[in-house]
This record gives sequence, C-alpha cells and structure tokens, in this order.
Amino acid sequence: MSLSEEPVRKRQSRRGRSGRKTAADNTPTSSAPYITRNIPYYEVLDEEGLELIENNAETILSEIGVDFREDAEALQIWKDAGADVKGERVRFPRGMCRSIIQASAPREFTQHSRNPARNIRIGGKNTVFAPAYGSPFVYDIDKGRRYATIEDFQNFVKLAYSSPGLHLSGGTICEPVDLPVNKRHFDMLYSHIKYSDKCYMGSVTAPERAEDTVDMSKIMMGENYIDTETGKPKTITTSLINANSPLTFDNTMLGAAKVYARNNQACIITPFILAGAMSPVTVAGTAAQSLAEALAGMAFVQLVNPGAPVIFGSFASSMSMQSGAPTFGTPEPALVLYVMASLARRLGVPFRSGGSLCGSKVVDAQAASESANTLIPTAMAGVNFVLHATGWLEGGLSMGYEKFIIDADQCSMMEVLLKGVDLTENGQALDAIREVGPGNHFLGCSHTQANFKTAFYRSPLADNNSFEQWSSEGSLEQSQRANISWKKILDEYQVPLLDPAIDEALLSYMEKRKASFADSNI
Amino acid sequence: MSLSEEPVRKRQSRRGRSGRKTAADNTPTSSAPYITRNIPYYEVLDEEGLELIENNAETILSEIGVDFREDAEALQIWKDAGADVKGERVRFPRGMCRSIIQASAPREFTQHSRNPARNIRIGGKNTVFAPAYGSPFVYDIDKGRRYATIEDFQNFVKLAYSSPGLHLSGGTICEPVDLPVNKRHFDMLYSHIKYSDKCYMGSVTAPERAEDTVDMSKIMMGENYIDTETGKPKTITTSLINANSPLTFDNTMLGAAKVYARNNQACIITPFILAGAMSPVTVAGTAAQSLAEALAGMAFVQLVNPGAPVIFGSFASSMSMQSGAPTFGTPEPALVLYVMASLARRLGVPFRSGGSLCGSKVVDAQAASESANTLIPTAMAGVNFVLHATGWLEGGLSMGYEKFIIDADQCSMMEVLLKGVDLTENGQALDAIREVGPGNHFLGCSHTQANFKTAFYRSPLADNNSFEQWSSEGSLEQSQRANISWKKILDEYQVPLLDPAIDEALLSYMEKRKASFADSNI
Repeated sequence: MSLSEEPVRKRQSRRGRSGRKTAADNTPTSSAPYITRNIPYYEVLDEEGLELIENNAETILSEIGVDFREDAEALQIWKDAGADVKGERVRFPRGMCRSIIQASAPREFTQHSRNPARNIRIGGKNTVFAPAYGSPFVYDIDKGRRYATIEDFQNFVKLAYSSPGLHLSGGTICEPVDLPVNKRHFDMLYSHIKYSDKCYMGSVTAPERAEDTVDMSKIMMGENYIDTETGKPKTITTSLINANSPLTFDNTMLGAAKVYARNNQACIITPFILAGAMSPVTVAGTAAQSLAEALAGMAFVQLVNPGAPVIFGSFASSMSMQSGAPTFGTPEPALVLYVMASLARRLGVPFRSGGSLCGSKVVDAQAASESANTLIPTAMAGVNFVLHATGWLEGGLSMGYEKFIIDADQCSMMEVLLKGVDLTENGQALDAIREVGPGNHFLGCSHTQANFKTAFYRSPLADNNSFEQWSSEGSLEQSQRANISWKKILDEYQVPLLDPAIDEALLSYMEKRKASFADSNI
Repeated sequence: MSLSEEPVRKRQSRRGRSGRKTAADNTPTSSAPYITRNIPYYEVLDEEGLELIENNAETILSEIGVDFREDAEALQIWKDAGADVKGERVRFPRGMCRSIIQASAPREFTQHSRNPARNIRIGGKNTVFAPAYGSPFVYDIDKGRRYATIEDFQNFVKLAYSSPGLHLSGGTICEPVDLPVNKRHFDMLYSHIKYSDKCYMGSVTAPERAEDTVDMSKIMMGENYIDTETGKPKTITTSLINANSPLTFDNTMLGAAKVYARNNQACIITPFILAGAMSPVTVAGTAAQSLAEALAGMAFVQLVNPGAPVIFGSFASSMSMQSGAPTFGTPEPALVLYVMASLARRLGVPFRSGGSLCGSKVVDAQAASESANTLIPTAMAGVNFVLHATGWLEGGLSMGYEKFIIDADQCSMMEVLLKGVDLTENGQALDAIREVGPGNHFLGCSHTQANFKTAFYRSPLADNNSFEQWSSEGSLEQSQRANISWKKILDEYQVPLLDPAIDEALLSYMEKRKASFADSNI
C-alpha cells in the first residue's frame, strides 16, 4: 500500500467506539436568529462589467419598457411619476427607477416575530434561510410522492421550527391541496403562527388574501403591532411578488404588492426566470433583464409607499435546450447569482436568491450536488434572504421530508462558513504547536482539550464511521438516516407557547372570514 | 395553487419528447488540455490576516523546527544551507525557506505528455483535475466494495482518458493489491502510458521506484525527453511527497523527492493533515502549521536542485471529536483551503489542494454534498493541481466507479464556472430582449437559435425529466444512471496509439527490472 495520503486511514482504524460517548455533542444548536457574515463577498465581475449590465438594464427600461397588466391604478401611478405610459407598456427615463428606489427604500430592515428573540434582520451583511415554497407535492421515502395536505404543511412548519439552520418558518411551504384554494391561506398562516414563533411570509395569490395576512398579523402582534418610535406598523411578513418574465407584472402580483407596501410589510420583487425561455440564453443578458424587471417592481413599491421595505429578488435557472426542462445546479445560474448579488449591493437594497435547488425526484447524489451548486454560491455571494433553502425537489414541484432536514444541515454548515476564520490567539493556536512539537499528536494537548467541544462542524446526518461499523448498522444511505431523523424530530416537537386569547382571536377571525364567502378552487 | 414560483412548472409540463432528439447534443466535450480561469479568486482573509499566518509559520520554523528523519544527506543539505540542525531537528532562520523558494522555484511549469496536445500548464491561473489516489478498495453498485486489482486500475485509467473533465491520468488511482507491493509501480505506470496519453504521476513509495518512474518516462519520451532549449529534462511526472504532520518528513518521502528533483520532475509537497490530531483544532493554527511544513519541504527540493518544479500542497480534513474519524465537506477545511491558496499565491508557486472528498461509503446525498463542499471552494480558491477530483469514497479508502464519472461531470461544470461571464455583444444579448419584448418567450428568437447549442452546461448524468417520464424509465437514482454510463464508456473505449517500439522497450525494461529482485509485500 502506498504511504502517501495514508494518515486518514491510520487514524480511522484507531478510533474506538467508546470515544463516541464520552465526547461532548456539538451538533448544531445555533440559537442566533440570523447570520451575520464575517467573510468577504465573492464578486465575479469588476466595476466595468457591472456598469455594463446596469447600463443595459437602463436601455431595456427606457427603450423596451415593462408591461403592467390589467391594473389601471398602477399605470396611473407611473404616469404621475413621469414615466412614459402607452397602453399597458411603461417606459422609464434612464435612471428613474434607480433614483426612486435609492430615495426611499431601506438598505436593511427588521422583520418581527411574535417572539422578539426570533426577529430577523434583512439586508447588509445578514443572511436568513427559509424553506422551499409552493410545491403541490410532498415526498418521503416511505410513502413516495403524493399531493400535499395541511398535515404535511404543519409537519414542515414543525421541522423548520426545530431546525437551527432555518430562520423563517416560510410561506407556502407546500400547497395544502386538501383545502379550497381561496381559503387555504388562512390555515397556512395560522399554522405558521400556532406551530412556530419564527417569522413567516404572506399570501400573494389575491389582494384580499394579502389583506387577510395583514389582519391576522395584527391580531398576532396585538398592541405590539405599531412601532412606538415611528408610529408605523412593524414589518411582520415578507411576501413574494414575482415578475412574469420577460418584462411583465400582472394584476394579481401588483394587487398583493400594493396591500403589503401600504401596510409597511416587505415585498420581494423577483424576476423568476427560466433562462432560454423567459430571458436570453446568456448570463449577461439574463442579468440585465432581471435587473430591469427588479428595478421596475421595486420602484413601483416605493411609489406606492415610500420607505416600505423591499427586497431585490432573482431566481434564474437554466433550461435544457434538448427538452425544455428547467435544470438546476449548473454553472450559469451560479454566475447569474453572483452578478445579481453585486448589483443589489450597488443599488443598496437587500437581496433574495439561491437556495438548495435541484431537478432530482429523490434525495440522491444529483439532488445533493445540484443543491450545493446553488447553496454555496448563495452563501459566497452574500444573499440576504434565501428562499427554497430546504426541501426543494423536482424543480420545486415536490417538498421532500428527507431533503428538508439534509438541506437544513447544510444551512447550518453555511453559518459556520460565513463566520470565517478565528484569528484570536486561541484561533492561532501557536502554543498548541509548541506543546505538541514534531511527530506527536494533538488529541490530548491542552488547547484541544479546551476547544474540542466547539471545534469543527458536526453533521448529525453524515456517517463517518468505518465501512464495517456502517455495514453493521444497516448500510443506510443518508436519505434513510434522514428518514429516521425527521420522524424523531416530529416526535419530540413541542408547540411554542401562544397566548390563548390571541389563539382564540385568530380562530374566530378565520371562522368569520371563511364563512363570508363560498369555497372555490380558483 | 400559488401563482408564485410557478413558471418552472408550466414550462416543465409544456415540453415534448420530440425536442429531445432534434436539439443538438451539448454534452461536455472540452478538448482543452487544462483550464485557464477568467474569474477572480476568492480571498477569505485580508492582507493583515495572511501576514499573521505567515508570521506564525516563520515562528514555527525558527522556534520549533521540522524533523527530517533517517536521512543524513538531508540534514547535511540543511547544515550547508545555514539552518540550525540538532539531531534530526532542523530550525530555520526567519524567512530562510521563503527566500530559497522564491530564488529558484518556477511560478508555473509545463508537464509534458507523450501527446503534446495533452501537455498541461501547472500554476498561475490554470487548473488541472486528476483522479483520486491511493485507495486499497474499489466500489461499484453491482459488486460492492472489494480490494482493487490491476484490472480496476486500468479501468480507471480508461475512464479518466475518456473524461473531458479530467486533465491527468493520475497516479496510484487505486492500489492493485493482486500485484506484489514492490513491483506494482511498474504495472501502474505502464497502464498510464499504454491506456492513456494524459499526464501521469510517479511512484513515491521508495527512491528506487522513483528512479523506475523516471527511467520509464525517458523511454516513453525517447529523443523528446530533453528540452532542446534548456538542455534539461522535460517535466514528465508530478509526484506526491507528503509530510508526516506535524512537522516531520521521513526518509521514504525525502528519498523519492530527491530523485524527482534531481531529474527535474515535479514534486507536490503536501502537509496531509487530519486537523485535531495532526494539527490544532483551529483553521488559523492548521494553516500556519501547513505553511511551515510546505515551506520546509519546498525549500528542501530547491536546495537539492534549484529550479526543479515544486507544488505547494495542502490537504486538511477535519476530525470528528466524538469518534476520531476524519470528516469531509465541513466548513472548516474549506476555510483552510481558501487561506492556503492565498498563501501559495503570495509565495509565488503552484498550489495543490481540494478534490471531491467525502466520508460516505456509497454514492448518496452525503457523498455528493461533501464532495461539492470541497470541489466548489477548490475552484473558487484557484487551486492549480486538483488531486482526488474523481472517485473518492470513504475517506479515500475506496475508489468508486459511479462516483468517478459523477465527479468528472462536476469537474466539467467547474470548467464552465471558471470561464466566467461572457460580456461580448452576443453575451449581452440586448438584441434578443429587443426582439422578444414583454410577455413573449425566447425559445424561437434568432439569438437563441444562434446560441442554443452551446448555451448552458448539460450534464449527461442529471435527470431533469418529469416525474412521470423518470418513473416510466425505471425511477433510477443518479448512481444507477452512472452505473450504466461507466460501463458504456469502457465498452466504447479505444486505446490511444502508442509507438510499438516504445511499447516494446517499456515491456522489456519492466521484465528485466522485475526479474532483478524478488517479490515482496513491503
């Protein structure tokens, strides 16, 4: 056997079983409500390259323009602001959208939870992770793929609540298709409030559902809803307003955006792009179009209510030019992500992108590598609000139980990565090297003794045992270990305290509202 | 169903089967012999942080020193150079090793192949990928885990030859345990030369095996062995000289290093560290110790033969403080990697690190995410020579057939990532956005037609089909698709042309040498 690259093997065979029990458990248990990075951003383009993209976005906005569909109020708002409005097409003088945004949009803001210890800070050097959003199906390795129900939804709320890697409870984590479309937002929102105390996202599928979201948030916060300093409502929800790329916003999204903006609730304006179909097949073209769309949407929000929190969103996947299927984890969307993050920083607003995206139907190597190929750029680029951080399978069509907690583990790793290098005297560890000297080992030295409990991220889902031990324990793949793990988490879940009066008020509000109109699946 | 995040689904259901056949196949077929990056390096520490690590390394070298074991010649070389030698311990005046290296070590060099089109450039902005190295076992999903044989070795040479993502054939890809230890290097080397024309690595397990490597390389190159411009031997092999961390080099490695250096063959000097056992449990401590070890080893090579190509290596995995097992894909080794890459650039020598490392026994989600957590930092940090880029399983104990080609696909993706953003007029694609306009799609526009063949990386191993189609095709996980793929590649493999006279000379050399000493398993 070769001597080279061998020490890993030697150490591996030396370890004993007893060590597993005596050492402290440093499983991730971060209680930080959000991450603040200590490492630099990765910038893929230089100043000149970014200016080129910005210039192209202004050309798109001024020459081609953006359609605001079936929303006369929106068109009037743009006319009043000085844009060139012809029919539903709005063209913007160069620099107009940027100026509007920079005049009033906050660089950072706080999203409040019913538990102040869970408040999150969005923007700047901060990062928050939220579960995947919007899938009609769920998947686990016991029952396979099936339509999601409200029980699944609540399970995922509980898993997110129990995951130290996640900072939000999410929004439409999965679609509870056992409930009528026009009423399920009540149950989703109530589930977030009841089964978690992490921040949540609001309904965007109709303006009145956005109003319901605001009303229930008011009930939840009670007298804490209004910020006593500013006299304005606190920001309780962040909601997802997607462009219909290319260069179109529809009245559903605009209607929800107006409700949220007027109530000082946050909107993420996201060009949601399958490049090659909804944007050009190039990175620079997709970036310029995304910037143009986001600028138009964010400026609109600022016109509706100057100062309302708004997040610059970007979601760009590539497309298989063979089949037309969306593809994930390829290099081009990672490049788009890096470019967009830089553009958002230059504009001075929080940025949403990334996640743990994949096209795989199951939690196999494809799912994991595609997810990592998105999640790592997400962390390196400095994304502030990470939607789809956990659970995403099958291009977003399915929410996976095993995928959820495997992804949450990766999110916890990103937290450690973003902490960066400890350069304190203890981090430098020169005394340890002095104490041990050439040819000896560090296992028992005093520095190791003092630091071993917090040294190195320990994944609860990775198996690093010997082949023999792993075999004797059933030769489980990671998805099988994750299956055991999510059941245990749900089993041990304890519902966080909610004031019974608030609970009662929420239920009563829902009952009254649900009774006021007929069920419908539109 | 929510409207948001929905377009992916719409597009997915729209695609037809016919599209799969009419579109061109843009499966990765790079014929570039190596990668030259167009994107910036990621620097995790600033100037001050890097200087701190460099200063600590000099403290280690001057105060603590490095053991050069059982090699009187090495100790004499250090004495002659002005180091403080006491017994086997060598202490180095501050800055001594750095000065020696910077006086003569090349910043970049060319490693030559028997096919000049496969020559690789090591250092600078270039990156090359080589297979994993040194595993006693192999694994595939048909036969499971078993000891490796020379047939496995040759299979992996053929897979590497057939993989556009790989630039070297590798070294001890796996240990052919069916051959005697003291003679198997002949068969490994011959297999690299016979079944591939990509560059290879030499034997380091004994000085005489290094001599055999040099001799066979001379035979292979014939009259092309000597560079007519410099009169010196061309660099044909790169070989792996590992430190016995902490702070120790042994006579086996030193013996091989001397042979290679004197023949102008390249050495990678690698502190091979399981942090927590062989270095302190911190990133900054591990980085300082690694730098000290690499400085001592590289300076030694330059003293043996000034100007001989040398590569700064770093391999640092974390350790489970519970079990003592090596762990992979955790955040701390990624931070070490970023730091070491910056330190190598400041020193001005090529850098080796990274790969597709994992602790998993099989090709599951753990294997893939751990590998990505190493491979992406490898690309972003600017590693020049990437060993263990494909096949690594189980902490390096096992070489996986399916893992190999899944990893090779990821290496091809890294090539696209490193190309960066196309900012030409075609890349900007403004005309496409003008042509299509709001609310339409880009599928048929002239820019898409002109670019679709090369747009977006297409993985041959990712399945992006609908759930229904994927189910109808057998619900295969990626490892199962990879199983089909590597068999097909081996089936279609064609041996590259080798001059029969050279082939004959190599076989004759091996026969004579093998007959000159008895088989042994040491």
